[in-house]
Amino acid sequence: MTSSDPLLLGIDWGTTSWRGYLIGAAGQVLERREADCGLTAIKDRDFAGALQAACGDWLAAWPGLPRLACGMVGSRDGWREAPYVSCPADLDSLGAGLVVVDGLHIVPGLVQPARPDVLRGEETQILGVVAGDDSERLLLLPGTHAKWVRVKGGRVEDFATAMTGEIYGLLARQSILSRTTAPDAPLDATAFAEGVAAGHDRGLVDLFGIRALGLLGRTGPAALAARLSGILIGAEIAAFGEDWPGAVTVIGGAGLSHRYVTALALCGRAADAAPDDAVVTGLWRIAGSAGLLKE
Amino acid sequence: MTSSDPLLLGIDWGTTSWRGYLIGAAGQVLERREADCGLTAIKDRDFAGALQAACGDWLAAWPGLPRLACGMVGSRDGWREAPYVSCPADLDSLGAGLVVVDGLHIVPGLVQPARPDVLRGEETQILGVVAGDDSERLLLLPGTHAKWVRVKGGRVEDFATAMTGEIYGLLARQSILSRTTAPDAPLDATAFAEGVAAGHDRGLVDLFGIRALGLLGRTGPAALAARLSGILIGAEIAAFGEDWPGAVTVIGGAGLSHRYVTALALCGRAADAAPDDAVVTGLWRIAGSAGLLKE
Repeated sequence: MTSSDPLLLGIDWGTTSWRGYLIGAAGQVLERREADCGLTAIKDRDFAGALQAACGDWLAAWPGLPRLACGMVGSRDGWREAPYVSCPADLDSLGAGLVVVDGLHIVPGLVQPARPDVLRGEETQILGVVAGDDSERLLLLPGTHAKWVRVKGGRVEDFATAMTGEIYGLLARQSILSRTTAPDAPLDATAFAEGVAAGHDRGLVDLFGIRALGLLGRTGPAALAARLSGILIGAEIAAFGEDWPGAVTVIGGAGLSHRYVTALALCGRAADAAPDDAVVTGLWRIAGSAGLLKE
Repeated sequence: MTSSDPLLLGIDWGTTSWRGYLIGAAGQVLERREADCGLTAIKDRDFAGALQAACGDWLAAWPGLPRLACGMVGSRDGWREAPYVSCPADLDSLGAGLVVVDGLHIVPGLVQPARPDVLRGEETQILGVVAGDDSERLLLLPGTHAKWVRVKGGRVEDFATAMTGEIYGLLARQSILSRTTAPDAPLDATAFAEGVAAGHDRGLVDLFGIRALGLLGRTGPAALAARLSGILIGAEIAAFGEDWPGAVTVIGGAGLSHRYVTALALCGRAADAAPDDAVVTGLWRIAGSAGLLKE
């Protein structure tokens, strides 16, 4: 074994994406790749075949390498269900909840029974973000289903899900608003800010105004898409903000995360952004906690 | 001319429905029918042919009968656009805004430029509901796009649109929630009431809980659909309620209107229901105001 030999094959295996990482002795990424074998692309539940197609060369080169995956591959519709672990949850409880199928360890999702709410995949990102940080923090992970997460002492204490991203997609592409909005246009910052203010103040009251503005020819499709996004995110911040006070760290630096950081600041919330590559760190930490790593 | 001869052919011509009425000298319905020629069913913009197919016998029997239609037939995608009339609007301003195509008069929609917001079709229902009533009232017309309407002195003073119905349809049938909801099941009153309380208190915060309840097997699809409906209507009442205080008259006695009356009461708002057949009265009043009726 040389210094560049990997100690872990880490996989982020979601509904529409597959990302694999060869991880070295310091937790660093030696090699990474993406493959077109998210859950929706897999035929006849042939997960083993999909894994071979995605990284059969790695499996052949390092046959004894421990393999750890997170994400929807552990859902009921995935390869093998890894039952939800209850909050508060930490590295140990996640490590204890791993399931194994065909040599692949799978990270469980989290459940907050009191709410109730569930997440799967984000638990690994979160434990990557808070590595070595025992402070109490509020994290926000944007996406189709945005997660508001409270961490403390390295534990996930509580979380809640906002469906803002999915509602935006449905309204922008399939509702009557789709006729006058251009969701793929570059973000119109002014229209977005106006939408955030409207959503924060009045919830969804101004949504249909997007239709009216389009009919009356007052506002173009790019600005209307930005306004729609702003209204929904502003309404989310107002609704979730009451129960989730304090400074927010938004995970991810790109598009949607930038919108959240901007919107939080417009709503008077302190907000910063953290890189979204934390999934590797999370996989590495969970593997270590579960005793998968050979010294 | 006998006492049973009609004085008006009234038509409620919408996106997906067509309803025709022969109306007598006292404003009473002599004959009514429905036809399958809503806007979406019309080929090659052959509105004249659609009207012949729907009621050619009536047109032949009473060739001089005035014809008045309301609804999306007057939209940009309809037979002939009847430009929006601004609020506050009354019988006279609607009558002055009629457009005529091929002998058919079409009622204009309303615009509230300040908001902005628009409606089309509901203006006729509203003027039917408030016939002979000069008091100030708050009306709510449920539907795909629910309308909150302030009337006073027989005028439509202001209105606002809630997209609750359309959002419900998208979430119940096309979102991740569709996997565990049964929107066509009979209403589960308890689950609906719990949803209303959650939506009124916390907006859309609890939406994804519907997914979690389904995944955890705690609640069945009918109850989850009722909970979804309740959350959305409760959130609507909270958001619109601030700017639209007072007792509410919900137009229509059936399904969706019943949900609104129930939800308003649960949220501490005084609410009653009015029949939804007011469109005939509205058409009759507008025709009279515009001088279409022969004595």
